Amino acid sequence: MTAEQKAYIAGFLDGDGCVMLQLVWRKDYVLGYQVRASVVFYQKTQHEHHLRWLKEQLGDGYIRKRGDGMSEYTIVGFAVVQRTLRLLLPHLRLKQKHAEIALRVIEKTPRQSGRASYTPRLLMELAEDVDRYFTLNYSKKRKNTAAVVRRFLQARQMVSP
Amino acid sequence: MTAEQKAYIAGFLDGDGCVMLQLVWRKDYVLGYQVRASVVFYQKTQHEHHLRWLKEQLGDGYIRKRGDGMSEYTIVGFAVVQRTLRLLLPHLRLKQKHAEIALRVIEKTPRQSGRASYTPRLLMELAEDVDRYFTLNYSKKRKNTAAVVRRFLQARQMVSP
Repeated sequence: MTAEQKAYIAGFLDGDGCVMLQLVWRKDYVLGYQVRASVVFYQKTQHEHHLRWLKEQLGDGYIRKRGDGMSEYTIVGFAVVQRTLRLLLPHLRLKQKHAEIALRVIEKTPRQSGRASYTPRLLMELAEDVDRYFTLNYSKKRKNTAAVVRRFLQARQMVSP
Repeated sequence: MTAEQKAYIAGFLDGDGCVMLQLVWRKDYVLGYQVRASVVFYQKTQHEHHLRWLKEQLGDGYIRKRGDGMSEYTIVGFAVVQRTLRLLLPHLRLKQKHAEIALRVIEKTPRQSGRASYTPRLLMELAEDVDRYFTLNYSKKRKNTAAVVRRFLQARQMVSP
C-alpha cells in the first residue's frame, strides 16, 4: 500500500468507520469475559464493492451483509487489528486517540506481550482500559463494564473485593 | 497540501461528506431557478476542530453550528467547489462520479465557461444534469426537478412546450 492509500483509508475510517474495544461475556471462560478489539467499516450493500476494495488493501477481516441494506467489513482479533491500526495510525486524525488506546490494550494482552496467559488481575486492568476507551468514545449504554467484570471475578474470589 | 493530505480528505469526504448539486428557487431571478453546487462536511460540534482543520487545508467555505449538536463545513459556489473537487478528484473513490458530474455542470455555467449569461435553454440543460446527478445519488424526494424548472419557463414562454 502506498502512503496515499493509507491516508485515504484513514480518512474514510475517520469519517465512517469504527475502532472498537469490547468486553465480551464467554460462558465457557474461567475468567468469564474476553476483551475484543475490532475495526469496522460500514457501507450500503449496493456499494459493497468499496468494502471489497478496502479488504484488498488491508488484507485481513471479512465482509458480511447485515440484511438491512447495509454491509460491514470487520477486522477482529488482536494481531490483525494491531497490524491495521499501525498502518493507519500516522494518518488518522479524529480516531487517532482511539487507535492509540486500542494498540496499548492489545500490547498488554498475553499473546501480543509474550506473557503466558490471562490472570484475573490482567483482565481487570484491561477492563479498566476499555472503560477509559469508552469515556473517550462518548459511548451509549454498555452492559459489560469493568465493574461488571470485577463483580464476576469477586464472586468467584478471583480478585479481592 | 501534500498528496497524502488530499487523499485523507478524499477518504473523509467519501465516508462522511457530501457533494451536492441543487436547483434553488430565486423569486427575484428572471429564470426562477439557480443551480447551486456545494461540498459539505459534517461533524459533531464537539469535534468542530476537525472541520476547522479541513477548512485550513482547503481554504474556502465556512463553518456553522446547526444547533442540534452538529456542525457543518460548507464550500458553496462554482469557482470554489470547482477548485476543491479538482484537488480531491484523483483520490476520490465512492464519490468520484458525483465529483465528475458536478465539475461538468460547473464547467457549463456562464462564468466558468466564459459565456455571457444564463439562457432558458442553458438552465434547462443544467437542470437535467442535476436530475441525472440525483439518479446517481439515490436521493430522497426533491422538490425542484428539471420538470419543475421546465414548467416555470414554459409558463413564462421562455422555452417551448
